Amino acid sequence: MIQIQTVQLAVVPGNVRANWKLIEKEIQKAKQKQVDVLVLPEMCLSGYLIGDIWEQDSFLEECELYGQRIIEASQNLTIVWGNVAVDRTLIGNDGHIRKYNAAFAAYNGKLVSPTNSNLPYTIKTLLPNYRQFDDPRHFTSMIEVAAENHMPIEATLQPFHLPIPSQKEPLCCGIILCEDSWDENYPIRPMHILKDKQVKLFINLSASPFALEKNQKRHRMISKLTRDLQIPMLYVNQCGMQNNGKNCYVFDGQSASYNAQGILTGETAAFNPSSTIFSLNENIGLITPNEATIYASSPSVLEALRYGLSEFLKSIQIHHVVIGVSGGIDSAVNAALYRSILPADQVLLVNLPTQFNSHVTKNLAHQLALNLNCPYVSIPIHQPIANTYSELHNLSIQTTKGIQQLPITSFMQENMQARDRSGRVLASLAAQFQGIFTCNANKTELTVGYGTLYGDLAGAIAATGDLWKHQIYELGHSLNAFFNQEIIPAENFNINPSAELSPAQSIEKGLGDPLIYEYHDYLLKSFIEPWNRATPETILGWYIDGTLDKHLGCTRKSSEIFKTPFEFISDLEKWWNLFSGFSVAKRIQSPPILSVSRRSYGFDLRESQLQPYYTTKYLQLKETLLKK
Amino acid sequence: MIQIQTVQLAVVPGNVRANWKLIEKEIQKAKQKQVDVLVLPEMCLSGYLIGDIWEQDSFLEECELYGQRIIEASQNLTIVWGNVAVDRTLIGNDGHIRKYNAAFAAYNGKLVSPTNSNLPYTIKTLLPNYRQFDDPRHFTSMIEVAAENHMPIEATLQPFHLPIPSQKEPLCCGIILCEDSWDENYPIRPMHILKDKQVKLFINLSASPFALEKNQKRHRMISKLTRDLQIPMLYVNQCGMQNNGKNCYVFDGQSASYNAQGILTGETAAFNPSSTIFSLNENIGLITPNEATIYASSPSVLEALRYGLSEFLKSIQIHHVVIGVSGGIDSAVNAALYRSILPADQVLLVNLPTQFNSHVTKNLAHQLALNLNCPYVSIPIHQPIANTYSELHNLSIQTTKGIQQLPITSFMQENMQARDRSGRVLASLAAQFQGIFTCNANKTELTVGYGTLYGDLAGAIAATGDLWKHQIYELGHSLNAFFNQEIIPAENFNINPSAELSPAQSIEKGLGDPLIYEYHDYLLKSFIEPWNRATPETILGWYIDGTLDKHLGCTRKSSEIFKTPFEFISDLEKWWNLFSGFSVAKRIQSPPILSVSRRSYGFDLRESQLQPYYTTKYLQLKETLLKK
Repeated sequence: MIQIQTVQLAVVPGNVRANWKLIEKEIQKAKQKQVDVLVLPEMCLSGYLIGDIWEQDSFLEECELYGQRIIEASQNLTIVWGNVAVDRTLIGNDGHIRKYNAAFAAYNGKLVSPTNSNLPYTIKTLLPNYRQFDDPRHFTSMIEVAAENHMPIEATLQPFHLPIPSQKEPLCCGIILCEDSWDENYPIRPMHILKDKQVKLFINLSASPFALEKNQKRHRMISKLTRDLQIPMLYVNQCGMQNNGKNCYVFDGQSASYNAQGILTGETAAFNPSSTIFSLNENIGLITPNEATIYASSPSVLEALRYGLSEFLKSIQIHHVVIGVSGGIDSAVNAALYRSILPADQVLLVNLPTQFNSHVTKNLAHQLALNLNCPYVSIPIHQPIANTYSELHNLSIQTTKGIQQLPITSFMQENMQARDRSGRVLASLAAQFQGIFTCNANKTELTVGYGTLYGDLAGAIAATGDLWKHQIYELGHSLNAFFNQEIIPAENFNINPSAELSPAQSIEKGLGDPLIYEYHDYLLKSFIEPWNRATPETILGWYIDGTLDKHLGCTRKSSEIFKTPFEFISDLEKWWNLFSGFSVAKRIQSPPILSVSRRSYGFDLRESQLQPYYTTKYLQLKETLLKK
Repeated sequence: MIQIQTVQLAVVPGNVRANWKLIEKEIQKAKQKQVDVLVLPEMCLSGYLIGDIWEQDSFLEECELYGQRIIEASQNLTIVWGNVAVDRTLIGNDGHIRKYNAAFAAYNGKLVSPTNSNLPYTIKTLLPNYRQFDDPRHFTSMIEVAAENHMPIEATLQPFHLPIPSQKEPLCCGIILCEDSWDENYPIRPMHILKDKQVKLFINLSASPFALEKNQKRHRMISKLTRDLQIPMLYVNQCGMQNNGKNCYVFDGQSASYNAQGILTGETAAFNPSSTIFSLNENIGLITPNEATIYASSPSVLEALRYGLSEFLKSIQIHHVVIGVSGGIDSAVNAALYRSILPADQVLLVNLPTQFNSHVTKNLAHQLALNLNCPYVSIPIHQPIANTYSELHNLSIQTTKGIQQLPITSFMQENMQARDRSGRVLASLAAQFQGIFTCNANKTELTVGYGTLYGDLAGAIAATGDLWKHQIYELGHSLNAFFNQEIIPAENFNINPSAELSPAQSIEKGLGDPLIYEYHDYLLKSFIEPWNRATPETILGWYIDGTLDKHLGCTRKSSEIFKTPFEFISDLEKWWNLFSGFSVAKRIQSPPILSVSRRSYGFDLRESQLQPYYTTKYLQLKETLLKK
C-alpha cells in the first residue's frame, strides 16, 4: 500500500512566502507520518486569481525560488505540486516571458521529471477561457508546446514515475491540472492520452472555484473517466477565497478519490483546509482515505457564503461590519449572515428611516437586532433629506438664455434617500466603527438596476449579490435553521418586499416592488445563467408556442400575470431594456460579488455599456403577435 | 487602375441594424462612384467590444442575417467585410457554438470564397489575448482550424481572387484581420504565408483601438512587412467608441495605404468616419488615395479625448453634464474638455467649498466658469457636514461590554466632505439637470487611491483617468491653445495642487498633495505601463546601481528628494502599499475610464484585491542597504 497525503491548502493569493510557510508545515507533517507522497494543489505558491501580476518578473522569480525550497525539502518524501514554470528562452503569444501552468515532482532534493519528456515538469494541456477563467492570457498550453516542436501531443504529454520510499518500484502517475479532466469540449483528452502509458494513478491538481452543483458534475464526469479508463484518481483542490476584483470565489477543497471502477471512494470536508492520507493499492486500482468519509450532499449556499465571507474579511483585515437594516428581507439575511461569522459586538446594525418607512419594518429591524444581540442605532434621515431638498429644489442657474430652474422630482428624491443612507451615514459609521459597510443587494435587483449608485449599491462587498430574490428567502430559512431560532422574524418572509422610498411603495397599503419574483426571477435568470442564454426573441418564441413557464421553471404561471400579449411584451421589454441598458452602468461601479452561481455579474459575465437591442426576428414576431 | 473604396465606419457596438443602415448608404455611394471594391472594417455589423453577447444565439443569427443583406447588395460591386462566422456543426473550446472572427467577400449577389479553401470565408489567424483583448474567449483561430483538420496552416490560409468589375482579371488579395499583421510575437506569420500565393494586395480589416503612439508603431511595422514582402497593403480601421464596461476605447480609423516598397502613400483623417477611394496599380505595387493626404503626426491626447467623450455621451444619450469645480487643475481641465464638445448652457459648474477652501481656488473656479461662459453655482457644504458631524461624532452604541463611543477623526472628515460633494449634491444636481456628473480623477490619484469612494471617485466617466498628473497640465495647455484663450487661468498651472480637505492641505500655507509629481508620476507609471513592469525589487535595484532616474525618466532628481536610503525606501513602500493594496478596492468601484495610454486601469490591467507583497530578494536588498 502506498500512502499519499493530500493537502487542500488555503492558498493566500499573491503571497508566496505565506504559502511556503503553510507548505513547509505540511511537509514536516508528512515526514512525521512517513507517507510516501505529498500532493499539493495547482498554483499552490502563487495562488490562482492574481490578475496581471504574472507580468512581474520579480514575482515569477519569487515563485521559482520557493519552488526550489520545495525541491530541497523533499528528502525521503516525494512531493507533487503545482507552480508556474518559466522558460526565459521563449516568449508567449503576448510577447512576455514564456510561462506554463505546470506540475512538478521532487524526491530526495532533486526534481523528478516526466519519463520520456524533454520537459522537467508537465504542463496544463487544456487552458480554460470562459466565465472567470483566462488561463491562456498568461500561460502557454501543452498543445501549443507540442505544435511548436512539431510533435504530436502524445509525445509531449508524459507520466511521472514517482519514487515511492516504502516500495522498490516507482509509481507511474498521470499528473494533470484541473481543466485537463474537464475535457468534454476540447479536441484533446489528456487523460486518454496518458492512459496508454501504463499509468496506475491519476493525480489532478486543481484550483477549482466552488459553484452550486458543480461538484455533482465533477463526480459524474470523473466517475465516467476513471471507469472508462480503469485507472483510479486522486483529486486535490485548493481551499480559501480568491478574487479577480469584481468577483470573490471560494475554493471548496473537497479533495476526493475515485477507484478504477469509477466509484467515489472518499472525499474530504468542504471549506476546510486540511491534510488527508489516502492509501493506494495499485494492483486493484483502489484508493481510499485512511479515515474514509463520503459526504452525502454538496456544500450549501450558506456554507459557501459563510466561508467566503470569513475569508474575504480576513483577506482585507477587517473585523467590524456596519449593516444598514431596513426591516426588509435582504438586509435581515445579510445581518444574520455576518452575525453567523462575527461576534455580536462587531456587527453594528443601523436603521435609517424616513417618513416613508412603516412601523412594521422599523420594528422588524429592531427585533432583528435584539435577536442577533448586535448593537443597534436608529438614525432618521428625514431632516437631512429635507435640508438638501430645500437647498437644491428649483435651484436657479444662469444660462445664456436666461434663468433656468432645476426641480427635484419624486423619483430623484428616492435616489437621494438611498445615497444619504450609504454615502453620508453608513460610510462614515463604517470608518468610525473601524470596519466596512455592506451592500445588501440581490441578483434580481442588480439585473434590472433596481438600486441607487453610491446608495444601496455601495459597500465593500455584495455577499448576497449572486442570489435571486427567491434564494434570499431560502437563505433566510437556512440562517434561522443555523441559529436554531427565528433570528429573522417570521413576518420578514410574509410582508411585501418594498424599498419604502415613496408613498407609492407603502407596504401598509400592500404596495411594493414592481417585480413579481415568482416569475421575474426566472425570466431574468434566463438572460444570464443557462448554457443557451435567452433574449427577447427566445422568450417571445416560447410565449407563442406555450412553453414559456416550462422553459423558465418559474413558480407562478405567466398566464396569471399577463392578460394579453401586449401586457406580456410591455413587461418583457421593460426588463430587457433595464437589464441590457442602464443597469450595466450601475454594475460597472458596484461592489465585488461573492460568487456562487454558475454565472455571476462581474468578470464572470463580461458586459459593455450598450443600448438595448432587439433582433429583427423578434420585431417580426412581435408585430405578428400584436396584429392578431 | 483598380478603384477601392474604404469605409472607416463609426460602428455602433451591438446594434446590427444601425450598422447595416450605415453600410447600406456606403454601398450606394460606392455604386454611384462606380468603384470596383468596397472595403469595410473588421466586425462591422456587430462591433468589436460587446462583452459576452457572443453567447446569444439570436444575436449571431442577426449578424448572419445582415451579412446576407451585404451579399445581396453586391450587384456590380465587390464588397469585402468583417463579420462573425458561425459554424453550428462544431463547437468552440468553451463548448458553445463555433464562432470565427472572419472576413467575407461577395460579388453580384454571391459569396466569393478564398481560392483553394474548404471555407467560404477566411478566419482571423492570430487572436490577441492581452491587455483589453480576449478574442480567444469567443473565437476559434485559423491555427486551431488547421490543427483539427490535420493540415498545415499554409493549406488553410488562402487568398481571395476578387472580381474587379472594371477589369477582366480578378485581383488576388490577401485578406487578413487586424492582429494578423501584428505578428511579431506569434509562431505563425499570416502575411508571409499569403505572400507565396501570388497576392497582389493585402487588405487588413481592423478594429484597432487608439492608444498614444500606437500608430507610429503600426507604420513602422507595416512598412517593414510590405517592404519585406514587396506587396502593397490597404489598412481599414473602425471609427467610433466602444467599451468593455471598465474602459472606453476610441477607434481612430486612420485607414492607410502602403506601397510595395513599404512607403506610407496615404492615410485618412483620424476620428473621422468617412469613405475614401484608393487607386491600385497592381503592376507596380502602388496604392494611393485619390485625394492623397499624409498626416505628419499622430492624433493628440486632446483629439482622442474630445472624440471619445463625444461618442460616449452620444452612446448613453446624454447632453448635459454637471462638473464639480474646486479651482484646481483637474476639474478645470475636465470642465474645459467637456466645454470643448458641448454648448456652454449644457455644462453646469458647481463649486462646493468648505472652510478649508481658499479664496484663491474659489476665485479660480468662478473665473473658469466666466471664461467658459457656463452656468455656475456655489453651494457651500460646511453646514451640512457640520450637521452630520454633530449627529454622528461620538455616537453611542450599546455593546455586550457596555457603551461604546464612535469618534470621527480628521481623516474621516476629509472623506465625508468628498462624499457630501458627489453623493449628496452633484448626483442630485446631475439628475435635476437631466445629465450626468463627471469624475475628474487622474491616473496618479487612481494609482494610489488618493480619492474617496462615492466621493470624488464617483461619476459617469473618468475622462482624464488615464492621464498622469503631468499630462493633466499638458492637456490644460492644449485646451487653452484649442480655445485660443487662457480658458484655464494661468494661476491654475502654478498653485500647489491640493485637495483642500483640512488645514494640513492649505494652499495658502504652501501645503498640498503628498505627491511630488515630477518624480512620483514616473515611479508609479513604472509599476503599470512599461513592457517589463517594475516592482519594489526592480526599483531598489535601480536605486542601488544609480540608474533609477534614467530608468524612470522622471523630471526631478530622486537624489534631491530623498536624503537617505531609509527615506527612499519609506517612500517607495508607502506608495507600493497603496498601489497594490487598498487602492485596488477603490478602482473596482470606480467609473469607466476613457483609455488612451498603453495600459489603463480596468479590464486592460487586471487586478485582484490582495495584500501588498515584497519579494524575498527585495527584503534582502533592503536589509543590506539599511545596514550600511
